[in-house]
Amino acid sequence: MNQPVAHDVARPRWQAPTPREHRNYPYNCWWVAASSAELGRELLGRWLLDTPVLLYRRESGEAVAIENRCPHRAAPLSLGCLKGDNVQCGYHGFTFAPDGACVNVPSTGAGLPAARIRAFPVIEQAPFVWIYLGDPDCIDQVPPPHDLEWARDDSFRYVHGMMPIKANYMLLKENVLDLTHFGYVHAKSFGISDWVDPPRSTTQGDTTSYHQSFDRSPLPPVFAAPLGLAPGTAYNRENYGSFVSPALQIAAVDFVEPDSGTITGRFRVSHATTPIDASRMLYFYVIGRDHGTSPEEMDGLLKGSETGFAEDEAMIEAVQDMVLCDPRGAGAPEISVKADAPGIQARRIVERWMARESG
Amino acid sequence: MNQPVAHDVARPRWQAPTPREHRNYPYNCWWVAASSAELGRELLGRWLLDTPVLLYRRESGEAVAIENRCPHRAAPLSLGCLKGDNVQCGYHGFTFAPDGACVNVPSTGAGLPAARIRAFPVIEQAPFVWIYLGDPDCIDQVPPPHDLEWARDDSFRYVHGMMPIKANYMLLKENVLDLTHFGYVHAKSFGISDWVDPPRSTTQGDTTSYHQSFDRSPLPPVFAAPLGLAPGTAYNRENYGSFVSPALQIAAVDFVEPDSGTITGRFRVSHATTPIDASRMLYFYVIGRDHGTSPEEMDGLLKGSETGFAEDEAMIEAVQDMVLCDPRGAGAPEISVKADAPGIQARRIVERWMARESG
Amino acid sequence: MNQPVAHDVARPRWQAPTPREHRNYPYNCWWVAASSAELGRELLGRWLLDTPVLLYRRESGEAVAIENRCPHRAAPLSLGCLKGDNVQCGYHGFTFAPDGACVNVPSTGAGLPAARIRAFPVIEQAPFVWIYLGDPDCIDQVPPPHDLEWARDDSFRYVHGMMPIKANYMLLKENVLDLTHFGYVHAKSFGISDWVDPPRSTTQGDTTSYHQSFDRSPLPPVFAAPLGLAPGTAYNRENYGSFVSPALQIAAVDFVEPDSGTITGRFRVSHATTPIDASRMLYFYVIGRDHGTSPEEMDGLLKGSETGFAEDEAMIEAVQDMVLCDPRGAGAPEISVKADAPGIQARRIVERWMARESG
Repeated sequence: MNQPVAHDVARPRWQAPTPREHRNYPYNCWWVAASSAELGRELLGRWLLDTPVLLYRRESGEAVAIENRCPHRAAPLSLGCLKGDNVQCGYHGFTFAPDGACVNVPSTGAGLPAARIRAFPVIEQAPFVWIYLGDPDCIDQVPPPHDLEWARDDSFRYVHGMMPIKANYMLLKENVLDLTHFGYVHAKSFGISDWVDPPRSTTQGDTTSYHQSFDRSPLPPVFAAPLGLAPGTAYNRENYGSFVSPALQIAAVDFVEPDSGTITGRFRVSHATTPIDASRMLYFYVIGRDHGTSPEEMDGLLKGSETGFAEDEAMIEAVQDMVLCDPRGAGAPEISVKADAPGIQARRIVERWMARESG
Repeated sequence: MNQPVAHDVARPRWQAPTPREHRNYPYNCWWVAASSAELGRELLGRWLLDTPVLLYRRESGEAVAIENRCPHRAAPLSLGCLKGDNVQCGYHGFTFAPDGACVNVPSTGAGLPAARIRAFPVIEQAPFVWIYLGDPDCIDQVPPPHDLEWARDDSFRYVHGMMPIKANYMLLKENVLDLTHFGYVHAKSFGISDWVDPPRSTTQGDTTSYHQSFDRSPLPPVFAAPLGLAPGTAYNRENYGSFVSPALQIAAVDFVEPDSGTITGRFRVSHATTPIDASRMLYFYVIGRDHGTSPEEMDGLLKGSETGFAEDEAMIEAVQDMVLCDPRGAGAPEISVKADAPGIQARRIVERWMARESG
Repeated sequence: MNQPVAHDVARPRWQAPTPREHRNYPYNCWWVAASSAELGRELLGRWLLDTPVLLYRRESGEAVAIENRCPHRAAPLSLGCLKGDNVQCGYHGFTFAPDGACVNVPSTGAGLPAARIRAFPVIEQAPFVWIYLGDPDCIDQVPPPHDLEWARDDSFRYVHGMMPIKANYMLLKENVLDLTHFGYVHAKSFGISDWVDPPRSTTQGDTTSYHQSFDRSPLPPVFAAPLGLAPGTAYNRENYGSFVSPALQIAAVDFVEPDSGTITGRFRVSHATTPIDASRMLYFYVIGRDHGTSPEEMDGLLKGSETGFAEDEAMIEAVQDMVLCDPRGAGAPEISVKADAPGIQARRIVERWMARESG
């Protein structure tokens, strides 16, 4: 795990790249920048929260995130190349160290302190590389990245992936906070048709959670097979999840043998969303379980999840299009029901995160 | 023919989705939503006058038009499915009746009066399905859809089609109101080269019309063949047409035997245009005649018309591009001549339609 | 060489199509409209400085530039056709002479003085056709197009080409004014790795120039082969260039035998850039030399230059994207070093050109 990069003391007061009225995401928050598997000795350029970010690993393997914009003539540094741990711009050769210092300008033969770029604190907790894009002065007041403890538990195996989605990140958050969509969006893929009633939901501080128990409910094939049970077996399921930060939603299913009350299987999903800008996001997902963990079964889990998440993507992008095309904009109606309670709590929590930034 | 759908009495005051300064189309007008052939038991989603519209037929065959936007979380209802005469949203299963009522929310097991969506009055007069998107309180003051009487005349056969065009709808209206473009846009396709002089034009109320007589003029091949005459035969043609509403332009040619004065053939075209938004339209055309009506000849008529209308489309889209790219905008010059009189009258008529909306 | 077209005396006061705050290019300047080879008896429509321009040659061969917009109904005249030296609009047949006069409206059978369009002065100096899009009253105060004298010298051969680039034209200017990019952008193509130090630069009036001498420096293969020398031969090179107007940058390399001081080869490049609008340009280049001028060698010169210029294009478009995507806009940092002196002088010269327009 990397330590956050040290910051230069003499720097101008931090300013958010995008004014608050044009976004619904806080900067003073840890966000997922990439999956661990994405980073290596190739330069990876990404826009995250309207910020050009360059990601790579040092020779030691440590993850680095710096501004992906040469301050000389605005070339994306991702078009350049690595020189050891440093990045050389592909336009005129300005070279930057992982801490953002400009260590060489070829036409002068020297470094250039004024050309320092931002280096962003990163924390790697596989399978995620987290980034902090906010006010450096506030980093200590910000909750650290949520640790996916189960992912380090040897009895678990997981698969993961990333998809860019052309929609505001909260549309994905609201999707995973209202699982009544399973019977419609995923009717043909996941085949989980019994998530109909709104769950119990609770909010504690800045975490909103839902919990729903299915008692002696027929197991859908997608759940039965990894447990080694026949589809339709009457079984108990405890379904619960939490919005733990604007960056991350976690979800769980515990499978419980109805007679003994024994947990016979644990299933976990983490949904990390990082805004590219107000109408696009990167969606990083991790899906794991402690049963049905053979390579073939895990491969099936990944393929099935990709199919299902593509269904979510299509729906969410259609909603974003509707919002963008409708001239009524925010004036168009929005009706909520009890199943939306967790999603509405999540919006309020995001507002509180953002309100703290100006305080 | 369907009757307009009944409206809820207690509803908020109607407001146009787009402010007047951003459009040149009235809402209080019947527009063509689709051709009869397009509608069936599949969901058809369309933007018409900046409004998301969902079209389908009831089990009885009656056409339905409701808002294509779930008021829950803005999903396009066209991604859902039909349940009998109702539409079930593909996101969380909210279900709507043809009158817009929300008759079921699965997570509550009940309907939700507050989630009512708009239902739009529709009138089907084959081959067109007309829609009223305007102020419900004004529907009785609005002229009904123009009836294409000839299309119900057994001696006629017609073909029809629809093309989306990336241009303001009035560019098509002005195109069909100034037929001097035939000698240039359609020089190689229709081959009608004698429409050179501006026609007589008259305006009565909100209808502007043109009329032009061709006396003993050589028949172009496209007209001669269906009449069973040799190309170039000296023949009389009475060409006339009217802008009957912002939604519809009708045109006619009567072929007259020069010696006897007998009408030996009647040719009819209807051009319906419906704005998608200020720079895009749907163009619905119907072309019929009472001679040369064998299936092979009608197929030839359709193919030839498609070729010619594609020429109009290319020109009109080029004009729209010019208007959008030119930084002078409305300040760029526009010079009119006598042949533009019907088109200019049409603009004034549209302005009067729009002025009545605010009155 | 054509003479500028005479202008109508009674015309409204000239106005720039785009307000000054939305552009960084002067109108009162000669710009390259096309290469000589592009113009013929086909109609060529182009946007230049936010202006729709139609280019063609008269039957005599003389180049013509008029507004590419019919003042009747805004059709691009480039969709029409030539009738002798005149252009007939493809929509309703309005016909325009090379001086912009509307000489025929078919539906009236006469010309229409009010429908005159702008005719733009053009000067052809092969391989460039220059255009003046600015205030006609100021044309006499504007420096004439720079004459590429070497291109008319019989000992030279040249190749040339045009590429549309999605970037502001000054990004290309700054590219060719700071040749330290050769070692990075063109490391694999041109292989000229010794342009590292910033050149001497001088500004005289509105011309900024650089000069750099390479003494007994190993010749890169790209330079050695046409001179008939072995790659790596120690040789002298005098590299120099000038920003001669916002439209044109010229560059030269003289190859000098180190012992005798004799110039054994001369290499010339001209970079003409014409804004389409604020974020797109046409880039016209001419590359010539007086050695290695066999057809095979000149073909190799063209192909090699196309490869290298495509590298510039990719970098410049990436910079433009960065500028457009970054919400900080002009507020993002820009750090300059000594090698940027010519480019910064060029910006100031452009500002002076523009300041003169309002004076």
